[in-house]
Amino acid sequence: MKITGNAIIAQGGGPTAVINQSLVGAIQEMKKHPEIKKIYGALHGVRGIIEENFLDLRQASNENLEQVANTPCAALLSTRDKPDLEYCAKIFQIFKKHNIRYFYYIGGNDSSDTVRLVNEYAIKEQYEFKAFHIPKTIDNDLVINDHTPGFGSAAKFVAEAFMGANLETKALEGIYLGIVMGRHAGFLTAASALGRKDQTEGPHLIYLPERPFSIDSFLSDVQKVYDQYGRCVIAISEGITDENGMPIVAKLKENVTKDAHGNIELAGGELGDMLTKAIKDQLKIGRVRADTFGYLQRSFPGTVSDTDQKEARLAGQAAVKFSMMEDYQNGSVVIIRTKEYEIEYQLTELQNIAAKTKHMPEEFINQEGNNVTEAFIQYGLPLLGENFKKTTNIEAPLVNISK
Amino acid sequence: MKITGNAIIAQGGGPTAVINQSLVGAIQEMKKHPEIKKIYGALHGVRGIIEENFLDLRQASNENLEQVANTPCAALLSTRDKPDLEYCAKIFQIFKKHNIRYFYYIGGNDSSDTVRLVNEYAIKEQYEFKAFHIPKTIDNDLVINDHTPGFGSAAKFVAEAFMGANLETKALEGIYLGIVMGRHAGFLTAASALGRKDQTEGPHLIYLPERPFSIDSFLSDVQKVYDQYGRCVIAISEGITDENGMPIVAKLKENVTKDAHGNIELAGGELGDMLTKAIKDQLKIGRVRADTFGYLQRSFPGTVSDTDQKEARLAGQAAVKFSMMEDYQNGSVVIIRTKEYEIEYQLTELQNIAAKTKHMPEEFINQEGNNVTEAFIQYGLPLLGENFKKTTNIEAPLVNISK
Repeated sequence: MKITGNAIIAQGGGPTAVINQSLVGAIQEMKKHPEIKKIYGALHGVRGIIEENFLDLRQASNENLEQVANTPCAALLSTRDKPDLEYCAKIFQIFKKHNIRYFYYIGGNDSSDTVRLVNEYAIKEQYEFKAFHIPKTIDNDLVINDHTPGFGSAAKFVAEAFMGANLETKALEGIYLGIVMGRHAGFLTAASALGRKDQTEGPHLIYLPERPFSIDSFLSDVQKVYDQYGRCVIAISEGITDENGMPIVAKLKENVTKDAHGNIELAGGELGDMLTKAIKDQLKIGRVRADTFGYLQRSFPGTVSDTDQKEARLAGQAAVKFSMMEDYQNGSVVIIRTKEYEIEYQLTELQNIAAKTKHMPEEFINQEGNNVTEAFIQYGLPLLGENFKKTTNIEAPLVNISK
Repeated sequence: MKITGNAIIAQGGGPTAVINQSLVGAIQEMKKHPEIKKIYGALHGVRGIIEENFLDLRQASNENLEQVANTPCAALLSTRDKPDLEYCAKIFQIFKKHNIRYFYYIGGNDSSDTVRLVNEYAIKEQYEFKAFHIPKTIDNDLVINDHTPGFGSAAKFVAEAFMGANLETKALEGIYLGIVMGRHAGFLTAASALGRKDQTEGPHLIYLPERPFSIDSFLSDVQKVYDQYGRCVIAISEGITDENGMPIVAKLKENVTKDAHGNIELAGGELGDMLTKAIKDQLKIGRVRADTFGYLQRSFPGTVSDTDQKEARLAGQAAVKFSMMEDYQNGSVVIIRTKEYEIEYQLTELQNIAAKTKHMPEEFINQEGNNVTEAFIQYGLPLLGENFKKTTNIEAPLVNISK
């Protein structure tokens, strides 16, 4: 027996460049199924649900939806709210009030937990209900998933940024540090290597949160590369810590500022500025530059992976398709790689995704812990899409001149 | 009478995303003219000339050259050397030694001055010689030129970065500051507005080096926008100063660090971090984020303007064409806008470009000095190229719910 009623969809957490592809993929699929009556879009994620702030998505034209799909960031707006039990109970009451029988939530692992909790209320009250989590995160840290929608586009941004930085240090020499997002998982920082042509090209060093960071080894690594190539390009995760889990920026900071709660305040550009200072002071190298990629890397419209777009759209569509099958009541859509390069969408139980973090596997990190392996390149490259092109050096011989 | 001999080309100063288009445009045009025998490429700009470090560019395949044209940053590598009279005399000696009769230098206003000085030696020694400057700079600050090759692509990066930032603050609220390159000219910072759909969208405030910056007016502007929209996106030039020309970052810095020469050290992320702190402390707004775009904006491969590519290529070609005309001995290629939107290439005397800086004209800046005018949008938009697309909001009505 099929459930008939209204549907709601929402977007949560940090945005990505393709989260609207999943939204539009789900909406267009919903329209195909007569069991679904109204299609609501909650504004600002779960907050829009409890505030009953819904858009009537059936009124959006196909033309508008297709343009929205190609726009980065959450078209339904987002939220940082992490619902507790009481919040989820409230969500469920709203669902009952509006005869909402289908719930789709596009988000990271916190969002999957919200779907799980809301769904538990439905089970307890024997309310006929289908609840699905659609994955997204630039951090690529959802377990079970081979990769997550949003990662490929952010990875393309990071890879291209380092292709530019590599060419810059070749043209003008010096040291370049790029600080990349990802507090606990190093995938996005590792993506800095995806545009590298060979080992002489940058990034020459890559530091991930999966390995403890030592400032002494770092400086000695940098000196070694600089001696060899006269330049050095370095990718660093914002989340690097020492062997005790202490953030490196806090260690380097002479006068640590604490906020009202006693937490150490980590301002945007500080890690890069401090490592720059360490290199200048201790290695006596003059031209050292650091960029903190910050928010640029997650909603940048200009450099979206076409593969990521396609996959994100199909992930949204897959969630609705699963919800229409009698075998599935709820779950989280996961992306499984079946061959090089193909994927398929499967469904896993919500609790398998919630509150878990995937890290870079051992085989993706080199032994010294300062670079990625070829296995990572093979893994990551297909995700950047068809339009990703490496840079080219000029191929002409030096003129033989007796000076 | 036509001059027969060898030619040399080089690239100087900060790279751009399309400087290799000018290089390849010039090389391909040179190949058409039998007067030009060898085609040398000096490595690392003028430094490669005095070190006689030349590539034999006739050996580069067309296929390789076309790929190089699509690669950002200087394929012949660059230099920060600013030749004085003695340095230029040395360059001229090398030219005589190698029978170099054609000199093309792709660079900013310093580079045009180098071309001028070298050319003066040739005139003094009655050496038959043609010397041309090909413009490039992301700062768009060369006089006479309507705009410069390299600006359009950097402007596209900045516009797209702010389109993403605008969507981010809409989805998650708060304040966003983007610090943009350009120490003396505000064109690149102004480009932050080129993706803006209307005045409710960010950037809501734009601060340029052409106007003195006051921290008090800044904070009051931010508060006003925040009260109105619940968020605020701000573009700030790295070069902002107070009414006495003192850099704002130096004013805000409590413990000013000075380097060996007594210059104030301005680290990468500091201006953004300090303005963030000022907003948090004085306006008591919680979610404030700053990104310093740094080196990302000038050699980013992923988001190059096709118009900029085309124009840069034709600028290189134009220099060689001018050099083949008997009427022209030397000069700087300039881009003149003839209608909306068409350009033509003209030639101006070298001294007209050298050591001069173009600033944002009055009509491009609003009266309050905290935004750009519609005239700037009309000026800048064609430079971003055909592939520049604005973002789209979802168009669906709110559901009318009695709560």
